[in-house]
Amino acid sequence: MPQWLAQRAQLTPDRLALETKNERLTFHQLYARVRQTASSIQALGIRPLAHVASLQANTLTCAVITHALMMAGAVMVPLNTRLSEDELTQQLQDSECSILITDQTFYDQAVKVRARTGCTVLLAAELEQQEMPLAEFNPEVRLDDPCTVIFTSGTTGRPKGVVLTNGNHWWSANASLINLGMSPSDQWLCCVPLFHVSGLSILMKSVIYGMPVYLCEKFSPETVNQLIISGGITHISVVASMLQRMIDQLGENTYPESLRCVLLGGGPVPEQLLQRCLDQQMPIYQTYGMSETASQAATLPPEYMLDKAGSAGKPLFPIQIRISLNEHEAAPREPGEIMVKGPTVFSHYLNNAEATENDFDNEWFRTGDIGYLDEDGFLFVLDRRKDLIISGGENIYPAEVESFLNGCAAIRGAGVIGVPDKKWGQVPVAFVRLKEGATFSETDLIASCKAHLAAYKVPKRIFTIDKLPENASHKLVRRKLYEDYEKMNQ
Amino acid sequence: MPQWLAQRAQLTPDRLALETKNERLTFHQLYARVRQTASSIQALGIRPLAHVASLQANTLTCAVITHALMMAGAVMVPLNTRLSEDELTQQLQDSECSILITDQTFYDQAVKVRARTGCTVLLAAELEQQEMPLAEFNPEVRLDDPCTVIFTSGTTGRPKGVVLTNGNHWWSANASLINLGMSPSDQWLCCVPLFHVSGLSILMKSVIYGMPVYLCEKFSPETVNQLIISGGITHISVVASMLQRMIDQLGENTYPESLRCVLLGGGPVPEQLLQRCLDQQMPIYQTYGMSETASQAATLPPEYMLDKAGSAGKPLFPIQIRISLNEHEAAPREPGEIMVKGPTVFSHYLNNAEATENDFDNEWFRTGDIGYLDEDGFLFVLDRRKDLIISGGENIYPAEVESFLNGCAAIRGAGVIGVPDKKWGQVPVAFVRLKEGATFSETDLIASCKAHLAAYKVPKRIFTIDKLPENASHKLVRRKLYEDYEKMNQ
Repeated sequence: MPQWLAQRAQLTPDRLALETKNERLTFHQLYARVRQTASSIQALGIRPLAHVASLQANTLTCAVITHALMMAGAVMVPLNTRLSEDELTQQLQDSECSILITDQTFYDQAVKVRARTGCTVLLAAELEQQEMPLAEFNPEVRLDDPCTVIFTSGTTGRPKGVVLTNGNHWWSANASLINLGMSPSDQWLCCVPLFHVSGLSILMKSVIYGMPVYLCEKFSPETVNQLIISGGITHISVVASMLQRMIDQLGENTYPESLRCVLLGGGPVPEQLLQRCLDQQMPIYQTYGMSETASQAATLPPEYMLDKAGSAGKPLFPIQIRISLNEHEAAPREPGEIMVKGPTVFSHYLNNAEATENDFDNEWFRTGDIGYLDEDGFLFVLDRRKDLIISGGENIYPAEVESFLNGCAAIRGAGVIGVPDKKWGQVPVAFVRLKEGATFSETDLIASCKAHLAAYKVPKRIFTIDKLPENASHKLVRRKLYEDYEKMNQ
Repeated sequence: MPQWLAQRAQLTPDRLALETKNERLTFHQLYARVRQTASSIQALGIRPLAHVASLQANTLTCAVITHALMMAGAVMVPLNTRLSEDELTQQLQDSECSILITDQTFYDQAVKVRARTGCTVLLAAELEQQEMPLAEFNPEVRLDDPCTVIFTSGTTGRPKGVVLTNGNHWWSANASLINLGMSPSDQWLCCVPLFHVSGLSILMKSVIYGMPVYLCEKFSPETVNQLIISGGITHISVVASMLQRMIDQLGENTYPESLRCVLLGGGPVPEQLLQRCLDQQMPIYQTYGMSETASQAATLPPEYMLDKAGSAGKPLFPIQIRISLNEHEAAPREPGEIMVKGPTVFSHYLNNAEATENDFDNEWFRTGDIGYLDEDGFLFVLDRRKDLIISGGENIYPAEVESFLNGCAAIRGAGVIGVPDKKWGQVPVAFVRLKEGATFSETDLIASCKAHLAAYKVPKRIFTIDKLPENASHKLVRRKLYEDYEKMNQ
């Protein structure tokens, strides 16, 4: 099939493609900038299928780089800008990127990573401004080729690189289109990170649908509410903590009817928040998805918000969802592991055949999440993957934080759990067993975490404990830590 | 991917799926009827990938049979109900169908075909009403599997069976969705035949989008206008002669704003008609497509109706169109053969490797139509495939009619051309050279044509000629016949 942006610019050159506070680009203008940038990328010797890391804020330039890498056929590895130097280094090495594209905001961070990995650091704005002779690119896109590698927190403590193909992104955009429909007046507000699949998928939709996207560099409830109220925005993707802040800021006001879809993903939604949205008659589409399913896998349309409160809805048209219990299909309302199959499901984990094999049962992806389907086929998600902590839409695997704590000199063992937080939904807290004679300062240990882990992964509190709860095979029993934490807070 | 109708019924059971003058079916009800019918089909021993012919009017039952054959994995061969007994027999044999599903309207015709082919004739209504135990079907659809075989008139005189896969239909529905968008209030009026790809594609869209379709058994401008004016219909597919009759019947009235898309295909559109649509501010989407491209390949949105009058628009998103001139790509505005590439392009001609090979240049389908792309990439179709005559949206290849005439005892040679007709756009007329001493009666010869050819293929006039114009290699030069005809009418 034809290269997406080239085709879009050919079909609807004058439609608005991207808008920010300061700039507006039509598809023709976007294409011109992207082709220029892709020519610079090609001139640097970056070949099709090469892995290229990106560490950038949510800017127009970041969107241009994303499209330019696709045009050049390179595989983009978008890095979470909140990661620590250690984490960035590890992901750069794991994905075998020798080039890191960054911006002024993250330049210092990138330079530190360069010192440790020997990668080449390129400034996105410079790539965009180099006036290389325009190059020719493959006029077609192969759906089976890899397009992006997105790292997700892994159950074993080491993040896994989710390889999404062009086809995964294509099918995701199409499946969502069948689900949500499309009008010429649609404009999607992107205030979620472009390094997550949630933000990336909005860029893909933009070019496939021919739909304008308003890109916010940072999420601010004031700005977002103002944009919605002024009437241009029809769609927005949010996580619960963002929606909460938007509604708090909105106060007594209401959203206009032009707001047609609030796509609400990234973890559980507090009942109280849902009720406020219901009272406001907001068009909330609760959704269930993850990097591995290239964003939305199931979605609940607003007409069921009340009847099916708490449900993540039904699968998108090309997707199948089943609940597996002891390798059998569970009965309605019987909880089990949520399995997903369909053309949006990722290809494999990068350089991790073992994880890939573990996570697939034939073509069914084992999400690790626990849930059930009710008698009408609506999905209810009960528990996230193996103790996954979701904080403001970011996934944190306890194993990853424990792995760092276990490496500290004073610590003999560590257990991390997620505890309720009004603002972020959940935050991590840690329990540590000290080595004999070791001294403990919570402040110092938290500071040490901050130096090595993304801020959102840093435990808000660290408690000492005499003995970590273990099962017969000496595995940590986190459930017991939850009980301890509850007792402490009674 | 999941079986389409089963998935649709699971996702939106209560949405309206199909409506006729007398009936309304939700997707749940449609699914129940289809599953029952598919069970009858399976009980008859019809296996996946078996070819099954259909000779039916545009009824709800025909739609049910279409879905039931898909559910059972059989390949449907929808036959044009206007074909003669000879033609039906030939297509049934060419497609190796041992079963012909028909209805009361075409039962007598089917019985005659049975006498000549030995096929089994089944009444659609009986298949629907048999209460066989419900069978299980493959819960998934393979996009590469064949779904339908649609016969198109061939340049050599023998119709070719166009094999469309599930994937061709899927991509076509998706490509059209990206092009036209979708709202919850959409309802598509189907008054084009379900045995053509135009009608069939509406059924596919219905189940993939979850969109209701209003099915008319016969096209009547009064009924269609009434349905549109009453406000429920948002989309309609028409050919120029239908649109002309609709506008004539409409008189001084206008269509309401709820009519969002008039998809106008099936050949050239008279300028005068376009101008009337413009004056009425009708949302006309001129389109170019054919059985081989599973319907729409290019479409002109209404905003360009004036600026790009006469254009068929730009390719749909996943489609590429180029103009080939002496095996090179033509310059803008330089006419050449229209070539189409993309996932909606058919797989192959049934049992006709030679035609398939001739019509493909790698993955590019040679349409045989002549046209050009302007400097903005808009397609202008100049000449239809090798003297193709388009009469009221039906394709007639001169070679097919000539082939019949050449077989008549009195005739030594025949040439057929299409001449302008106010109602049908074009109609065929014939020139025949008689054998020495043969007598000629135009009336008798036309009657003989009527006995063997579909009515729309029968020449409206047959003229005798002393010598047929031929080129050096003794091939008929039809261009010369056009000139003769013009002179006769001056």
